[in-house]
Amino acid sequence: MKRAIVTGASGFIGRYAVAGLLDRGFDVHALGRSGDEPVGGAIWHRIDLLRDAEVETTIERIKGSHLLHLAWSATPPSYWTTPENLMWVRSSLHLFSCFHRAGGTRAVGVGTCAEYEWSHGICIEDVTPTQPSTLYGVSKDCTQRMLRAFSKAAGLSSAWARVFHTYGPGEHVARLVPSVILGLLAGRPVPCTAGNQIRDYLHVADVASALVALLESDVSGPVNLGSGRPLVLRELVSGITTLTGCGELIQFGARPLPASEPAVLLPSVERLSHEVKWTPKFDLDQGLRDTVAWWRQKAGRDPQGA
Amino acid sequence: MKRAIVTGASGFIGRYAVAGLLDRGFDVHALGRSGDEPVGGAIWHRIDLLRDAEVETTIERIKGSHLLHLAWSATPPSYWTTPENLMWVRSSLHLFSCFHRAGGTRAVGVGTCAEYEWSHGICIEDVTPTQPSTLYGVSKDCTQRMLRAFSKAAGLSSAWARVFHTYGPGEHVARLVPSVILGLLAGRPVPCTAGNQIRDYLHVADVASALVALLESDVSGPVNLGSGRPLVLRELVSGITTLTGCGELIQFGARPLPASEPAVLLPSVERLSHEVKWTPKFDLDQGLRDTVAWWRQKAGRDPQGA
Repeated sequence: MKRAIVTGASGFIGRYAVAGLLDRGFDVHALGRSGDEPVGGAIWHRIDLLRDAEVETTIERIKGSHLLHLAWSATPPSYWTTPENLMWVRSSLHLFSCFHRAGGTRAVGVGTCAEYEWSHGICIEDVTPTQPSTLYGVSKDCTQRMLRAFSKAAGLSSAWARVFHTYGPGEHVARLVPSVILGLLAGRPVPCTAGNQIRDYLHVADVASALVALLESDVSGPVNLGSGRPLVLRELVSGITTLTGCGELIQFGARPLPASEPAVLLPSVERLSHEVKWTPKFDLDQGLRDTVAWWRQKAGRDPQGA
Repeated sequence: MKRAIVTGASGFIGRYAVAGLLDRGFDVHALGRSGDEPVGGAIWHRIDLLRDAEVETTIERIKGSHLLHLAWSATPPSYWTTPENLMWVRSSLHLFSCFHRAGGTRAVGVGTCAEYEWSHGICIEDVTPTQPSTLYGVSKDCTQRMLRAFSKAAGLSSAWARVFHTYGPGEHVARLVPSVILGLLAGRPVPCTAGNQIRDYLHVADVASALVALLESDVSGPVNLGSGRPLVLRELVSGITTLTGCGELIQFGARPLPASEPAVLLPSVERLSHEVKWTPKFDLDQGLRDTVAWWRQKAGRDPQGA
């Protein structure tokens, strides 16, 4: 029997991952702190992952075969520096250890492009150095290192997904895509950087689908998640204005590029394509259509929130 | 007021560190799991560092200005692979966090040469890669990385001592120096490797004195501890036989060199010498005299233990 435990199940990526795992025939135990309704078909556990004893009891009771660990402190911009990162490292190590003790055999942890040193442009797993400059990056990197070493010592199969840039329904409103969409839908000017940064964006449903594929594989170690199709941020913004109109509200160059933002930050997707054998379903146009439609509907239902 | 918290205070290095801090005028709070008598003048706290709530309460009550964190799982050979390493990473992060919250300003964590990749021979801080092959090495390395990133984000002054090879009174009997001394004192043959490995050995009193100097300094990041005087292991063994006699019992070459043991493993001591401005008190001869005398006395008191 395939029984998956998903942490952060009510989060941006988590909801899609739960649905994806159900589609793939997993018995899904969804762990989350919020009181949200379960995604249909999953068994919901309301739990604070920072409470060690609760975690131990819950994981022991579920006896999952697979673990997808998404939960982390993720509120922008404080997640870069918050001391809570230490608690999430602690919590993650405890979770992996409990999962293994309870008989779990396959774990996937979720990391970030912020683990890499950003001066390298294209990031290749186990080649590009991971020397992150932020507490968040170091915390994710150390969790990866510990999961890998623990897996080797304990005989656990594990991998580590490095998420690059994600967009789609449910994203935090402070992030680029929602802030552009919501600005345009409200008819507000949208100050942007010059928009020359080169990035790789994946729709959240694709991120979740890649995570499910990685969890079902026996690929081990770090694996970048990306579409393999670099874009210039201007393209992404133009893609949105094509759908919303009001392109004249976009003010390219009105915001300085933060010094911490590299010109080019891209994942190598060799491992994802050739080892996990995964490819995305959404192209940029389809992905943005889906996303703009979701925000339109949400803005219609809840104009104050938009 | 200088108030130092020392974890692992009843351990091999800890006892010397407590004495050294008292000598330097610190008000010393010694934390240990065993019920040993306190070193005279220190305030003793019997505590299990793996119990988070106890740690939080104790650290909050002590309100130390300085922290020297020595405690870790250290029983040879299991410490290389035991899953307990995860608990020590967790415990260390919790300790640093509690210490900072309680107003602490200067922390020194204690690491190991096993953090370095051993193919490099001479290990230089922040130059030689840390890509350890063992769970123990990864766990110490990640704790260092987390302490450094947390310190930067939180405004804590911290350093990380990398201990190389240590010997002296109280060392675990399974380690090289005690096993040679005890074998010779008991008149047993002592099978050894060929003894050509090049290492740097420090007497435990010197290790503790370097830790105290580092704690009193404002040097940050990793700092190797070593004498700066490389030796061939044969020299060390010969130094012992000079003091004990029975050199004919040493069987060089009777044991194969484990594949994991590098020919050369030495610390660069530039940072220790020039930034911490510390030099050792013991030379090899004095150090071995002290050590052999201690084991003779112990063997006299407790012949079964020898």
